[in-house]
Amino acid sequence: MASEPPKPAENLIPSDSNALVQSTNPLHPANLICELCRGFYNLGWVTGTGGGTSIRHHEHIYLAPSGVQKERLQPTDLFVMDYATRSYIRTPTALKPSQCTPLFLAAFDKGAGCCIHTHSQWAVLVTLLVEKASGKEGCFEIEMLEQIKGIARGRGKTGSLGYFDRLVVPVIENTAHEEDLTESLEAAMEKYPDTYAVLVRRHGVYVWGDNWHKAKTMCESLDYIFQLAVEMHKLGLPWTAS
Amino acid sequence: MASEPPKPAENLIPSDSNALVQSTNPLHPANLICELCRGFYNLGWVTGTGGGTSIRHHEHIYLAPSGVQKERLQPTDLFVMDYATRSYIRTPTALKPSQCTPLFLAAFDKGAGCCIHTHSQWAVLVTLLVEKASGKEGCFEIEMLEQIKGIARGRGKTGSLGYFDRLVVPVIENTAHEEDLTESLEAAMEKYPDTYAVLVRRHGVYVWGDNWHKAKTMCESLDYIFQLAVEMHKLGLPWTAS
Amino acid sequence: MASEPPKPAENLIPSDSNALVQSTNPLHPANLICELCRGFYNLGWVTGTGGGTSIRHHEHIYLAPSGVQKERLQPTDLFVMDYATRSYIRTPTALKPSQCTPLFLAAFDKGAGCCIHTHSQWAVLVTLLVEKASGKEGCFEIEMLEQIKGIARGRGKTGSLGYFDRLVVPVIENTAHEEDLTESLEAAMEKYPDTYAVLVRRHGVYVWGDNWHKAKTMCESLDYIFQLAVEMHKLGLPWTAS
Amino acid sequence: MASEPPKPAENLIPSDSNALVQSTNPLHPANLICELCRGFYNLGWVTGTGGGTSIRHHEHIYLAPSGVQKERLQPTDLFVMDYATRSYIRTPTALKPSQCTPLFLAAFDKGAGCCIHTHSQWAVLVTLLVEKASGKEGCFEIEMLEQIKGIARGRGKTGSLGYFDRLVVPVIENTAHEEDLTESLEAAMEKYPDTYAVLVRRHGVYVWGDNWHKAKTMCESLDYIFQLAVEMHKLGLPWTAS
Repeated sequence: MASEPPKPAENLIPSDSNALVQSTNPLHPANLICELCRGFYNLGWVTGTGGGTSIRHHEHIYLAPSGVQKERLQPTDLFVMDYATRSYIRTPTALKPSQCTPLFLAAFDKGAGCCIHTHSQWAVLVTLLVEKASGKEGCFEIEMLEQIKGIARGRGKTGSLGYFDRLVVPVIENTAHEEDLTESLEAAMEKYPDTYAVLVRRHGVYVWGDNWHKAKTMCESLDYIFQLAVEMHKLGLPWTAS
Repeated sequence: MASEPPKPAENLIPSDSNALVQSTNPLHPANLICELCRGFYNLGWVTGTGGGTSIRHHEHIYLAPSGVQKERLQPTDLFVMDYATRSYIRTPTALKPSQCTPLFLAAFDKGAGCCIHTHSQWAVLVTLLVEKASGKEGCFEIEMLEQIKGIARGRGKTGSLGYFDRLVVPVIENTAHEEDLTESLEAAMEKYPDTYAVLVRRHGVYVWGDNWHKAKTMCESLDYIFQLAVEMHKLGLPWTAS
Repeated sequence: MASEPPKPAENLIPSDSNALVQSTNPLHPANLICELCRGFYNLGWVTGTGGGTSIRHHEHIYLAPSGVQKERLQPTDLFVMDYATRSYIRTPTALKPSQCTPLFLAAFDKGAGCCIHTHSQWAVLVTLLVEKASGKEGCFEIEMLEQIKGIARGRGKTGSLGYFDRLVVPVIENTAHEEDLTESLEAAMEKYPDTYAVLVRRHGVYVWGDNWHKAKTMCESLDYIFQLAVEMHKLGLPWTAS
Repeated sequence: MASEPPKPAENLIPSDSNALVQSTNPLHPANLICELCRGFYNLGWVTGTGGGTSIRHHEHIYLAPSGVQKERLQPTDLFVMDYATRSYIRTPTALKPSQCTPLFLAAFDKGAGCCIHTHSQWAVLVTLLVEKASGKEGCFEIEMLEQIKGIARGRGKTGSLGYFDRLVVPVIENTAHEEDLTESLEAAMEKYPDTYAVLVRRHGVYVWGDNWHKAKTMCESLDYIFQLAVEMHKLGLPWTAS
């Protein structure tokens, strides 16, 4: 927790350079993405190559490729994009960029430093329960759970949500192709400017934060709340007072 | 992910040779089967010596023996069969071949490179829910889940199922002896030529793929979908629109 | 799996000797009990110092002490009893013998080589569901599950139960003191001579086998079946055809 | 288990000293808190920086800071407080003290040597089920479960609860700020002088014990009982006979 990730090399980088992803620092984004993905696999968030994680490191975006087993990810498997020009400055041979890339970029455009996408079953079930109760326009809403304090109040705002605040997470409809979610994700970000997460119906959730620490801990808190909400529903316990 | 598994030795191999199962390459099938089985044990797929995994490596079939604790499997415990002649070219002393062998071979005959058999409780419960709803002739059918994209479209076809495609997995009846499943497994393969999986009532599932990566990730995606389907059923959420 | 556990020293052993529990062989019962208990902790079988394991090694009985954290057990924490005389030949200082000891001995008297006691929640729930359905005299009965094949047919009999055999596990009432279970455990063993397990109402299960491999894999198969039975009950699926 | 934690240095300690948290002894409280928190993370007790643990070591109180990922906690992240004066004698730079601190101190004032706070979902669900059944004044009450024996009888009393004893855990209402729980926690301790745990509605549980071993194993036993109680409720099984 003490050591800072190293600054990126400023000089010209060949398109296949390993220098961008090789570091002995465990907090270097190339190492961190691999370590986080191993943990996410054990949580059931990235089963069967699903889901993904991206970290912004100064002007570079680190991205896991499409279709790889997340718990086996190696730093050399990562794509690196130049954020300003949206061009890949590192492209692993024989791998394809993640279809989540435009969605991760939407989060970075809102000031995020890290974005996590999970296929958590709790997230999927919550989107189905919301639809059943409130139709396609409904949001996931819950209140009076201590874990809500784990969610930041909103971009540019200080502190976290309080116990008596209502947590509201918008739900967008899934599309045939993941990149086609971008428009509705951005629309949800506009409509709910304080949210750090958007649920995708029958698909999962996107969660972001100022840095990897905040993105990961908010993703954990939300997943905890989604799971609790499903169990509450099974037990006939309402999510909100009214 | 980068390194290729080594080619098998072409010369004559004594029936008890360790050379077939000794390699420093973690992707050698003898090492890989042991590693995969440890992971499958933690997923609850091979509890109490149940389930199994087989990999085709050029003209050799690597098979875990019958009745061993899968999380403790060692490369020297493995059987190796010559695919062309169906004769064992490596037989560990004091161990018996798996009863799943003819079922694994049925998958290899359809072009598979790896076949996984699990006793996952989600698979078993899904077979019971299908029977309850549709009788013994019913298939497991579900649609509109992002994870369906984790399943390939079919042998000789390009790409994966789409979000709006219906996933159909046939269910066959269990038999007193595992090898007696072969005929109905092959019949299901004929009737559903695009399937990469067959559920076995009150027993589990067989999943295969072109290689171990595809077999494992499809098995994970299917197990995720089976679990989600059981939870959806508990919550009164239908699997298909009609 | 290949190497044999070493024979016990035949010479006189001082009551506090470490020689009985020190071995570089991972299959020595002192090492094995510790390793098994770490695994059982992760399965939720020995939470909060509950449950236990005992192995017979020639004329010596290895026993975990009372009230220790099972996942932290060290070989030097173990008691060793001389089976013939029922006297402790190794007593760790500051530790008390397990209250399960007479129950483990009842299993050894029936020819077991290893006995496992878990507080698995699935076992507890099954005892409650049996009582609700059949009253205090009922047994847990289930049929037509592949995993039933994981249970041996009975002492002195060859092979395992078949898919069409009914698994019957007797349930005894819990008592204020664990050692007071001995009489009813022995009575259940008499009444159901083929059983390798006895459920204890609101408490857990005792499972034994000819050796540690058989006791552990049967315990896993039974726990799998108990969990499946609870889930089947939640889904309205019957355990037996009639 | 054999070695004793070392005595604290008696001499004057600079406010940022690492000596208080550096030890090669795995049972030193600074090492132990980190190890315990890693285990608690895997149990789902401290998701998303929630929950915490504190150990009293002679006249020093070791405390995890606020808002850190518990599974990544390092000894140098810990606060150390002088118990007599309630002043911090070690303050890690850039970290804030835990808001749980006054609640941990309330437990130490009752003679505890360790206090654990979890956000376990089972604890939260139990508080909601108690409210639904008995209103805000209700306690969690359950009886006739073997695992109840894992709970000590009460401060200054010998031994543990028996199988036929009723376990009673008071529930207090949650507050906007965690430190505001202190008064009602102390009131519950007064009203239920034998309890080693207090549930907090929609929040989690505080569990303490004479030392870390007792606090941890009682916390495990209680969490097991909470989970079992939720499952019993789903299956229509009552918690008490009357």
